[in-house]
Amino acid sequence: MAGNTFGQLFKVTTFGESHGKALGGIIDGCPSGITLDFDAIQAELDRRKPGQSKIVTQRKEPDSVEFFSGIFEGKTTGTPIGFAIHNTNQKSKDYSHIKDSYRPSHADYVYDKKYGFRDYRGGGRSSARETVSRVVAGAIAKQMLPEIKINAFVSQVGELKLDKSYEDLDFSKIESNPVRCPDPEMAAQMEEYIKAIKKEGDTIGGVISCVAKNVPIGLGEPVFDKLHAELGKAMLSINAVKGFEYGSGFQGVTMKGSAHNDSFNSDGTTKTNKSGGVQGGISNGMDIYFNVAFKPVATVLQGYETIDKDGNKVKTQGKGRHDPCVVPRAVPIVEAMTALVLADYTLLAKTNKI
Amino acid sequence: MAGNTFGQLFKVTTFGESHGKALGGIIDGCPSGITLDFDAIQAELDRRKPGQSKIVTQRKEPDSVEFFSGIFEGKTTGTPIGFAIHNTNQKSKDYSHIKDSYRPSHADYVYDKKYGFRDYRGGGRSSARETVSRVVAGAIAKQMLPEIKINAFVSQVGELKLDKSYEDLDFSKIESNPVRCPDPEMAAQMEEYIKAIKKEGDTIGGVISCVAKNVPIGLGEPVFDKLHAELGKAMLSINAVKGFEYGSGFQGVTMKGSAHNDSFNSDGTTKTNKSGGVQGGISNGMDIYFNVAFKPVATVLQGYETIDKDGNKVKTQGKGRHDPCVVPRAVPIVEAMTALVLADYTLLAKTNKI
Amino acid sequence: MAGNTFGQLFKVTTFGESHGKALGGIIDGCPSGITLDFDAIQAELDRRKPGQSKIVTQRKEPDSVEFFSGIFEGKTTGTPIGFAIHNTNQKSKDYSHIKDSYRPSHADYVYDKKYGFRDYRGGGRSSARETVSRVVAGAIAKQMLPEIKINAFVSQVGELKLDKSYEDLDFSKIESNPVRCPDPEMAAQMEEYIKAIKKEGDTIGGVISCVAKNVPIGLGEPVFDKLHAELGKAMLSINAVKGFEYGSGFQGVTMKGSAHNDSFNSDGTTKTNKSGGVQGGISNGMDIYFNVAFKPVATVLQGYETIDKDGNKVKTQGKGRHDPCVVPRAVPIVEAMTALVLADYTLLAKTNKI
Amino acid sequence: MAGNTFGQLFKVTTFGESHGKALGGIIDGCPSGITLDFDAIQAELDRRKPGQSKIVTQRKEPDSVEFFSGIFEGKTTGTPIGFAIHNTNQKSKDYSHIKDSYRPSHADYVYDKKYGFRDYRGGGRSSARETVSRVVAGAIAKQMLPEIKINAFVSQVGELKLDKSYEDLDFSKIESNPVRCPDPEMAAQMEEYIKAIKKEGDTIGGVISCVAKNVPIGLGEPVFDKLHAELGKAMLSINAVKGFEYGSGFQGVTMKGSAHNDSFNSDGTTKTNKSGGVQGGISNGMDIYFNVAFKPVATVLQGYETIDKDGNKVKTQGKGRHDPCVVPRAVPIVEAMTALVLADYTLLAKTNKI
Repeated sequence: MAGNTFGQLFKVTTFGESHGKALGGIIDGCPSGITLDFDAIQAELDRRKPGQSKIVTQRKEPDSVEFFSGIFEGKTTGTPIGFAIHNTNQKSKDYSHIKDSYRPSHADYVYDKKYGFRDYRGGGRSSARETVSRVVAGAIAKQMLPEIKINAFVSQVGELKLDKSYEDLDFSKIESNPVRCPDPEMAAQMEEYIKAIKKEGDTIGGVISCVAKNVPIGLGEPVFDKLHAELGKAMLSINAVKGFEYGSGFQGVTMKGSAHNDSFNSDGTTKTNKSGGVQGGISNGMDIYFNVAFKPVATVLQGYETIDKDGNKVKTQGKGRHDPCVVPRAVPIVEAMTALVLADYTLLAKTNKI
Repeated sequence: MAGNTFGQLFKVTTFGESHGKALGGIIDGCPSGITLDFDAIQAELDRRKPGQSKIVTQRKEPDSVEFFSGIFEGKTTGTPIGFAIHNTNQKSKDYSHIKDSYRPSHADYVYDKKYGFRDYRGGGRSSARETVSRVVAGAIAKQMLPEIKINAFVSQVGELKLDKSYEDLDFSKIESNPVRCPDPEMAAQMEEYIKAIKKEGDTIGGVISCVAKNVPIGLGEPVFDKLHAELGKAMLSINAVKGFEYGSGFQGVTMKGSAHNDSFNSDGTTKTNKSGGVQGGISNGMDIYFNVAFKPVATVLQGYETIDKDGNKVKTQGKGRHDPCVVPRAVPIVEAMTALVLADYTLLAKTNKI
Repeated sequence: MAGNTFGQLFKVTTFGESHGKALGGIIDGCPSGITLDFDAIQAELDRRKPGQSKIVTQRKEPDSVEFFSGIFEGKTTGTPIGFAIHNTNQKSKDYSHIKDSYRPSHADYVYDKKYGFRDYRGGGRSSARETVSRVVAGAIAKQMLPEIKINAFVSQVGELKLDKSYEDLDFSKIESNPVRCPDPEMAAQMEEYIKAIKKEGDTIGGVISCVAKNVPIGLGEPVFDKLHAELGKAMLSINAVKGFEYGSGFQGVTMKGSAHNDSFNSDGTTKTNKSGGVQGGISNGMDIYFNVAFKPVATVLQGYETIDKDGNKVKTQGKGRHDPCVVPRAVPIVEAMTALVLADYTLLAKTNKI
Repeated sequence: MAGNTFGQLFKVTTFGESHGKALGGIIDGCPSGITLDFDAIQAELDRRKPGQSKIVTQRKEPDSVEFFSGIFEGKTTGTPIGFAIHNTNQKSKDYSHIKDSYRPSHADYVYDKKYGFRDYRGGGRSSARETVSRVVAGAIAKQMLPEIKINAFVSQVGELKLDKSYEDLDFSKIESNPVRCPDPEMAAQMEEYIKAIKKEGDTIGGVISCVAKNVPIGLGEPVFDKLHAELGKAMLSINAVKGFEYGSGFQGVTMKGSAHNDSFNSDGTTKTNKSGGVQGGISNGMDIYFNVAFKPVATVLQGYETIDKDGNKVKTQGKGRHDPCVVPRAVPIVEAMTALVLADYTLLAKTNKI
């Protein structure tokens, strides 16, 4: 119950600190018989990897995964898949300045209060480096569900907002630019903006949108484990996320029911999709789409005043190699968590009828 | 895993259909020794009850709870608390029109697909009537945490939005009007608007904001079970919810890190609270606040075209007694779910240190 | 986690104290589409009911079950099945003598220490009356698995031991006598013995054997949730149980591997079945069989000395209407718990392969 | 739910196959602040290690553990402890003979049926090699509970049975002989017997007894998660275990209640302890003691006939390096599982009272 497990049947438990020996996890409940594409797994890790472009952190981590178990002759065996990503580039000295003081809007203070002390190196367990394990697990979940297509992309950076329906976007262009925005023009603007922010030593927030197509009807467990509730939790569990909305979302509150309702076609599909592919917590076969809000990264490379363990004021400065904007690298993480939810709920749905 | 349980240590499992014999649940894991205030429990049920004002559904349900177990001489015993709310006003005939057809943006269609058939009376299990059990459990959770003060209120109805910080509101006025908006002037506007919407036979969405004060430092289980992730799931599990944001939320994405960070005071409190009382998924002792978006109720009292089980087009009309706007009655539900999360995480936090 | 839930996918949570208003539970995860035979459910309750013969407690409880939800037009809907057995014959005065003192080998003392106080009436939550809810749930689990045949029977009472292989017994005779021993001669001896014990105001232990036939191959989740491990936990969770063995059991320790191994037939069945139908924690299609040891009931109708809450010695006497030997009435409980395990593991096994 | 996790709050998930790259696991929920004694952890692994004496398998595995996370400056941090034991001596060729045939009384056949195929090398996931991870986790659990003293020992090998109360044994002698029987005379007999069995190419079963002293009052979660039920499941989850009994066990069934009851002393202790330290599923502060029955190892180094995947009869012969009797090496495993249950239930008990 200590919170390091996600999923009920397709269960992922992760371990690892930012600057420890290794991060990794165990996937328990992955069905047997899935032929794994290891290159595809690595490709997902590469999308999340630091140092991949000029607008992300310049740390260098190969982020290659070692599998220990649960795979035999290239296929999943149904037994737990243990894996690790070994840390190779641990510049602990970068973080000595936070050993005894608390960075604002980080988890330093609350970890100390909750656990009595903390591994302060690079944020320890609270670092977004933990998500490397999620990406591995999500890549396997994707391979369990080959029909489902999940695409996340950056739809907003600061005030720069992509005001188009996802249906008017060309997802094949997502990976064509470092921002991971499928609109090239907007992507270019966002990239320039992030570079300017970086130059200031500052950071900026953003929004990731995600669309899952070909999700079968019937995923979702009422009443508490509604599909969108689990998706929401999955997204909110990602570092720096402040909000989640699906379908009509916060905009939907201003609509009248007569305008908001999605009329049926004869085949059970709906003419509109303000429901966002989920009704009563259960997938209805339409596209699932949602938005995830990320705050600006808390580490700014500017001087600031904060407190130490004894409550004394100290002056310090952000150091290290950090992302000026987290959303480009968070795209594969959003996809991974989406895949984990869908894999889990696919297994759950196998048990609904006699 | 069928989704009817919420919480890990303070665990609530609910049962019941809209028009079945009874709804109810079991609270397992409630600590022993809590002297229960039964009037306070009933008061919460009354806040959620149909028929309480002109802007809510006019169904008449006494919604009184019968406790079966887990309480002895007025105190919780540490054993499971079984309870039921008996249905007394089951107008099944109101719903005969949906027996063989699917209402748009309801769960009728997906339940049939998922389970093979459904209890169609009043929406069956997918009805928001299920939340009556949550309110009972939440009322007990509140009593387990007497120091924590949870206040939810309506902050938006349609386009009518309360643009004030919660700190400038007088929570004692929330219950002074049927909308449950603490600003009397805005409340009056909202009430008029809902009445007009009702007259049209239409419905409208809204936002509920919630503030939890005096939450101790250290609640929240990284990495997947972050406090705000569980709060988000709790809210998204409520019928008609489309979005959740906490702290700076979706607005926060437009901010720079230097402006968004919450500087510390010497005592560990922060000068600002864009974090919304949670950092790294763990409560930091500041106020927790969040917004919950509700779509307009799908049942509109107007004629519409839809399909039947065989995909034939049918013309039908919304019937029954429904809420034109769900947020006034959802206020106690939001509070209840908040209390359940905080009770559960309070128990979890007892096990962090040796 | 407070221990009142059994199962992972076919999940039963029970509530209720011996002398409270009602006992009952929620079955969550029962698949939809099972046509329930309510008479068969009541028949199981009748097998467990007090007052059914001269060798069991003479309390009178109708033990009829009220279903609240999860059933529509006679079939399970896939939503939670809430139910209650209302207490109608609460002779609380029978138990006033234990309000302030602790009965030896009962749970009175530990409940007080664990929870701070207790519902002392009839043992409260620690009473075997709780198992009435298990029998309801087990009866539904049996109906989910119509091919599997589960038969439990009394194989030992005190020193009177049925030294026959279960294969030489006629299970149709189990219900032909009040002891529920399928060997009529031994049954008669056991019955006389129990009557004699009862006359003494004393109690005696016994063993229940159970056989499950037609269990499909592949139930069981290695490594911790082996099928027999879960069966063992299920049995050990029944009041008064002190031991569990399956297959060759404790006798098997004296055998050599060459003699203990079960050779295969060409069709995958085995020539012998010392494995007890489970290999490596997974069912192999052979009969599953096991023994469950029950201690003598702790309540003896004789004077004895014990202590009160303050540690003072007090003299008291067993009162009330108690079973001189628990095993005849525990037969349906053993079957119910077996059915619950098999139903749960049947659902789990649906998710093993892609 | 795939069965590779044990515990609810002190949760251990293991991974690894007999001849895979590594075995290991994640301990999630270990409280922060425990100063770990790494030598003590290795010492437990050494007690379980192959090759430690002439009566156990002669495989050579160093079995040293690498910790990846959750430990900082020698202390647990409250975050998940990831660890691996790397396989260094993988003689896969030893097992080629079982690639296409099924060894009797092993898990080969059921794994193939359940998962479609299997990692056949050394039994894959069904090998007792998996328990190496349990020993690591159990060693840490022991260190979390320094007051509790857990001692397991061999009390029976074949027909050679130690007929003494555990109170008359000197636990300091357990490690003085390779059998791990605290009675030197009986230990010598057992050792000779196992050597003779080994010479025959055969195997023999045995019983391990275990005693836990200084367990505080109040551990155990009624009704399904009784302390002894969880202990029973823990033991039954160990490879080759066929039975579990605690306190008076199977012997207790022959006793009368008047003789079986444990009378109280004024301080709440009991004059006798037939309850085995647990009443109503909750520890009462007396010694907890139980017996665990192990069948003879299925791999006998003799020729035998079995079937292949297509049901054809094949003649084959046991190969490899196997234990003639599993109990000497299983002693630390029994202790580890006991420690895991007690650690988990210690955390659970922190949440019982307000």
